[in-house]
Amino acid sequence: MSDLRIALAQINTCVGDIAGNAALILDRCRAAHALGAHVVAFPEMTTTGYPIEDLALRSSFQRAAARAVDEIAAALDAEALGELTVMIGTLGVSQAGRPFNQAVVIQGGAVVARYNKHHLPNYGVFDERRIFASGEDPCVVSPGGSPVGIAICEDIWQDGGTVAQLTGQGLRLLVVLNGSPFEEGKGHTRVELAARRAREVGAPVAYVNLWGGQDDLVFDGHSFIVSASGEVVASAPGFSDAMIVWDVPAAGTPALVSGIAPAEDLDEQTYWACVTGLRDYVVKNGFRSVILGMSGGIDSALTAAIAADAIGGENVVGVSMPSEFSSDHSKDDAADLAKRIGADYRVEPIARLVDGFQDQLALTGVAEENLQARVRGVILMGLSNREGHLVIAPGNKSELATGYATIYDAGSIGGFAPLKDLDKTRVWELARWRNAYAESRGEVAPIPESSITKPPSAELRPGQTDQDSLPDYALLDEVLDAYVEHAEGREELLARGFEPAVVDKVLSLVDRAEWKRRQYPPGAKVTALAFGRDRRLPITSRWRELEG
Amino acid sequence: MSDLRIALAQINTCVGDIAGNAALILDRCRAAHALGAHVVAFPEMTTTGYPIEDLALRSSFQRAAARAVDEIAAALDAEALGELTVMIGTLGVSQAGRPFNQAVVIQGGAVVARYNKHHLPNYGVFDERRIFASGEDPCVVSPGGSPVGIAICEDIWQDGGTVAQLTGQGLRLLVVLNGSPFEEGKGHTRVELAARRAREVGAPVAYVNLWGGQDDLVFDGHSFIVSASGEVVASAPGFSDAMIVWDVPAAGTPALVSGIAPAEDLDEQTYWACVTGLRDYVVKNGFRSVILGMSGGIDSALTAAIAADAIGGENVVGVSMPSEFSSDHSKDDAADLAKRIGADYRVEPIARLVDGFQDQLALTGVAEENLQARVRGVILMGLSNREGHLVIAPGNKSELATGYATIYDAGSIGGFAPLKDLDKTRVWELARWRNAYAESRGEVAPIPESSITKPPSAELRPGQTDQDSLPDYALLDEVLDAYVEHAEGREELLARGFEPAVVDKVLSLVDRAEWKRRQYPPGAKVTALAFGRDRRLPITSRWRELEG
Repeated sequence: MSDLRIALAQINTCVGDIAGNAALILDRCRAAHALGAHVVAFPEMTTTGYPIEDLALRSSFQRAAARAVDEIAAALDAEALGELTVMIGTLGVSQAGRPFNQAVVIQGGAVVARYNKHHLPNYGVFDERRIFASGEDPCVVSPGGSPVGIAICEDIWQDGGTVAQLTGQGLRLLVVLNGSPFEEGKGHTRVELAARRAREVGAPVAYVNLWGGQDDLVFDGHSFIVSASGEVVASAPGFSDAMIVWDVPAAGTPALVSGIAPAEDLDEQTYWACVTGLRDYVVKNGFRSVILGMSGGIDSALTAAIAADAIGGENVVGVSMPSEFSSDHSKDDAADLAKRIGADYRVEPIARLVDGFQDQLALTGVAEENLQARVRGVILMGLSNREGHLVIAPGNKSELATGYATIYDAGSIGGFAPLKDLDKTRVWELARWRNAYAESRGEVAPIPESSITKPPSAELRPGQTDQDSLPDYALLDEVLDAYVEHAEGREELLARGFEPAVVDKVLSLVDRAEWKRRQYPPGAKVTALAFGRDRRLPITSRWRELEG
Repeated sequence: MSDLRIALAQINTCVGDIAGNAALILDRCRAAHALGAHVVAFPEMTTTGYPIEDLALRSSFQRAAARAVDEIAAALDAEALGELTVMIGTLGVSQAGRPFNQAVVIQGGAVVARYNKHHLPNYGVFDERRIFASGEDPCVVSPGGSPVGIAICEDIWQDGGTVAQLTGQGLRLLVVLNGSPFEEGKGHTRVELAARRAREVGAPVAYVNLWGGQDDLVFDGHSFIVSASGEVVASAPGFSDAMIVWDVPAAGTPALVSGIAPAEDLDEQTYWACVTGLRDYVVKNGFRSVILGMSGGIDSALTAAIAADAIGGENVVGVSMPSEFSSDHSKDDAADLAKRIGADYRVEPIARLVDGFQDQLALTGVAEENLQARVRGVILMGLSNREGHLVIAPGNKSELATGYATIYDAGSIGGFAPLKDLDKTRVWELARWRNAYAESRGEVAPIPESSITKPPSAELRPGQTDQDSLPDYALLDEVLDAYVEHAEGREELLARGFEPAVVDKVLSLVDRAEWKRRQYPPGAKVTALAFGRDRRLPITSRWRELEG
């Protein structure tokens, strides 16, 4: 047995559930000890969950976090786990009363070292300079006499700071506590980065990441260890509880490879990111079931499939709300979907209700179309109120971006929008992936084939299709990606070869839709740059890319 | 005539309206020149409007701002205003491509100096470290040979930085360009701060502030100048276009007092802040009219009065939507209100529509109450769609905080909530102030007396009043202020002497209502610490103050 066995506990903490997180920490300390580990490390801000936003500024919350650390240390000692070196993240407080994003090291029933995160990310989804003070000093502890350094997440993404301070210090291991959100393709970047830091400090790097959903963020886990030469020697799967155990080699002895998780393809990762985001939003907020409108279209079909994978089809209520314009195939597809996933299926026709409003208001055109859509919203909210289901919104990113949606309809109301960060093209891809995955396992494909193949339509007037109002989705999504995600201007879009008419159409749609987006529920963020928290744009703004 | 006459142009810029802002700058430069000014200074980020959030990161927007500065310089020169020294705020870009919050000094048709804001606020409503790089160098220009220093807003609120660099440099004047949002009581703080900085640098401080509404912020203007000894020698009124002109005294000569704006009391300031916030949200977003539900209660009455003051009563559509539980006095008060403010008044009964849903859904209890409320939301959205009015939401801060409201009802839907940052106690106070103001001017009081005096009720069941569910508002608002605004915990609240039962009731209401608040429209922020952008709290969180 090695003299330095490290365990990385990849867990799903819950923001604010300090008692639950502490229990989880103790449970995994016991497991690590049983596996012969000398050191066990947990993700960023383990006791409090992550990210805690302005909760960090509440002194009552700061006190509760401090109490939890003391109680964990005492409990470890009481259980005769005192010789285990435990590295957990928590909320610290400076002498001046400012919060720190902190790692504490527990040994022998007491906190023996504290490290305060040096580099505070303040871009994209991160607001850490808003709430935390920055640490200045490195931290090295010596379990069994081996020097082990600590860093927290962003500390290895920026040059300088603690990693530079630890270089040349003869470390045996660098442990990094992370709360790194999922982005498509980010796994490779993390490994390359850790390999570079391993070579810089001349020691293996153990990277332990949080997994689970928190509001519009999904953390994917995918913890790993790279050797001093930058080779992956151990890795954990994504979106699940896991523990990596690895023997740190003595100087001059080769690094042995521990378990390596099988690689997942991008569709698979993104699909489980969506499932994780929805499941944790539902469960952590205390709901047991969800309700959504089932139109027979691809968006509600994929949303329902994700919901069934997240909390079980029996906890999904699908409501078909046909109008006079709903086609037979739509009603059939909705019923078929519900049957495939085992959902509680209801039919609530809206024609009579719409007629009631129309007798009084006599709306026409888009106002009339939106009325139908909003009557559906009222039905869902009523059933939600009566039965306690969380309403979920199947709106996708392409329609949110272009404003091709009714405010307060069944596609936009509710507490969570699982597809909010998937463009329409990606919705189709993930639906196909999910069906193929079922087929590869000999299971029933959850999504009716015709929901995938038929032309998309809101069915709010006879013969309507999305392409009456929008460019073809493949083209639309390409322009949206460049304009919204990569902040390219009209000039850059034209230089790429997009036709001026298409560019101008898309830009004018997006510019006008900007304010609408603020009224939609949060959804899981799964791509690198997404609408929502990582874009702060004024609502009141006269800036129009077309005229600028 | 003095050798150094300074003009401060207090204007209302619009975010993104670069052409409009540039035209406004040129217009005020002409006016300042006609008044014999040697120097004219404008508020923070004049060309782009403020705050521009992530628009700062778009290169097309950066280019447009740079072009605007060049065009303003050329236009000044072409109009023979080249000898005027013009200080405007704009969006600069560093060599490395990072945005600066910048002041440029224009003389003789060219930019002669640039100053980049040193202290970047990153708390409350401010996110400046997210988008801007920090400047390091001070900037002194010499109109007519007099050394004049420049700072931007937060630079004078923090010690060190540019003000420290300018101390002892023999300045004749320090000009500060500001985008300082309104807070109740902040006026005094600004003057005291400027007076301190004036004594530090040994020169008068000229403080020019933005006014106008931008999303949930209201900037109040209230520009002023303090002498080198810290006396106010000139001041502008709030919430209006204004220009201060003042002759900077030669060394050893006394400072003369220019115009001093009359003091406004706090109710008056807050009322006009609400009017400004709504008016600019409507006008800058291209609407001409608003629509709201008029229940006869105090919230919709004050909201309607604010709307009438903002855009004229003839542009306010008030819809009475009585149910079977609506009292006669409610209907009478709503009609009376509409008549007093000259609103377009409609009556749309909801009983028959609610019955239609009930025939199908048979809801009971709270679900039935909420159904009534949401049918009203559908009616307002339908009329909004048909006629182009912006829907505004009369919900107040006390009910948002406690979740005492229906999601998607007439109190919460729409684009702007004028009372979102006023607690119920303040709603009554401002209603009384507005009526007294009318009476003092011999005008009709806009708000029916009985809307102010009757017990508040949602009228969703017979005999219902707010106090069936909530503590008395005076007490509730006091606890809310301590818990929400000042982040006090249960321990601190009990130590203040609040009864445990009241504290626990309020805390459990707020903790459960937290997620609801994310689904409400923006409203003007008028107090120091408010719900919304300056509080980032997780939605998914198990933290409960009561259990913590």
